[in-house]
Amino acid sequence: MRSPGDATPAFVFVPELAGPGQRLTLTGDDAHYVTRVCRARPGDTVRASNGRGLVARLRLDSLAPLTADVVELEPHDPSGGGWVMTGAPEGQRADWMVEKLAELGITRWQPLSCARSPWPSAPARLERWERLATAALRQSRAAWRMEVASPIEVADAIASLPEGGRRWLADPDGEPLPSARSVTTGLTEPPQVVAIGPAEGFDDRERERLRAAGFRPACLATRRLRTETAALAWAAWDALEVVSRTRGG
Amino acid sequence: MRSPGDATPAFVFVPELAGPGQRLTLTGDDAHYVTRVCRARPGDTVRASNGRGLVARLRLDSLAPLTADVVELEPHDPSGGGWVMTGAPEGQRADWMVEKLAELGITRWQPLSCARSPWPSAPARLERWERLATAALRQSRAAWRMEVASPIEVADAIASLPEGGRRWLADPDGEPLPSARSVTTGLTEPPQVVAIGPAEGFDDRERERLRAAGFRPACLATRRLRTETAALAWAAWDALEVVSRTRGG
Repeated sequence: MRSPGDATPAFVFVPELAGPGQRLTLTGDDAHYVTRVCRARPGDTVRASNGRGLVARLRLDSLAPLTADVVELEPHDPSGGGWVMTGAPEGQRADWMVEKLAELGITRWQPLSCARSPWPSAPARLERWERLATAALRQSRAAWRMEVASPIEVADAIASLPEGGRRWLADPDGEPLPSARSVTTGLTEPPQVVAIGPAEGFDDRERERLRAAGFRPACLATRRLRTETAALAWAAWDALEVVSRTRGG
Repeated sequence: MRSPGDATPAFVFVPELAGPGQRLTLTGDDAHYVTRVCRARPGDTVRASNGRGLVARLRLDSLAPLTADVVELEPHDPSGGGWVMTGAPEGQRADWMVEKLAELGITRWQPLSCARSPWPSAPARLERWERLATAALRQSRAAWRMEVASPIEVADAIASLPEGGRRWLADPDGEPLPSARSVTTGLTEPPQVVAIGPAEGFDDRERERLRAAGFRPACLATRRLRTETAALAWAAWDALEVVSRTRGG
């Protein structure tokens, strides 16, 4: 039932946003969502993000085909969320991990292909993860979409990291992760990164590489956590950091 | 392949642990896990928890039937984890939420049957959630198992809470959740509690009730979070609190 005061306004992902006056045609999931879930009508406002910082206000023009005109484009700063690198979790647990990391505002997820748990690149899987990241963007009405990288080995992943950000290694024997507020130095700081082993754990060589690259062992909970739970727990801590930074709380 | 140096020792859930000399018969999932996954043999040590603070060392006696003798019983203090109350998430998302809350050491999960999202009690669902809490106990080798309560209304849930613990209401417009370390006053403090609305949100009456009962609006992330993601994020923060308390970090 359409009840404008209560309704959640539609928010879609449009990779190519050019500028005011641009005419867009929405299809597939987006069209279903706008017309069936949000029950938008011609003349209604819909918002769209390109997942790279631009959010547009659109005016719906027609329903079949579903077309909309860009009225306004607004740039947004990056969310400031960290990077998460993980080995393969068990079974299908990567799927919801991707959804949750994206929802919590993680900037980039780097799957790690580890000695004890190789994670061969599979285009179909990558596409599914991209779709999950897109769904999370819609859910969160976010200007930025989490980047999903292709699985690579630890050494290559280390080489791809930005300089200067803090680096954490999830480790039950590490020091407790410091209180969120104590780490923060500003929005322009390079992103923090966490490395989390696969279900079977990193091997000694991988751990040594990570330590040598400045990854500091940090404990997230008193209990053993699965790969995907550790990733989530770190991302939740990182999200609180972002809140503190942006609201000065 | 059995490789004792590397292998993870078996850990099972046994609701009734009496004391040394007790003979146990393990069946079903537990038997499969001990003999097939952990490849334990007669004479091997297995550990068992009753989910209420007792952990036993068992010595495997025979494989078919799978019997074991209790060698030693050790009591453990409660984990100190908080209580989580949530409305219904969308679809099947409650299942993994239960698994993750249990893994992060939450003491009790109270499903809330809300005005906008009634959550009728269903014995089959409760049983599945209990199984997930048990699986998380095994995964975490924990002495305490998360308690799964039957869905009740907000007013009744409030009436069932322990006195004196801090109370949080997940709310994107609230103050940032304080840094983990600042809340801690000791292991014997009553558990903290969080209330998280269903996918459709609490209604005004429910929010008013929670506020009147001392629930303080707290923001977990700059983005909109789904019910289950907010629950996870709060539980991760609570787990860090527990780490700080128990390790004095």
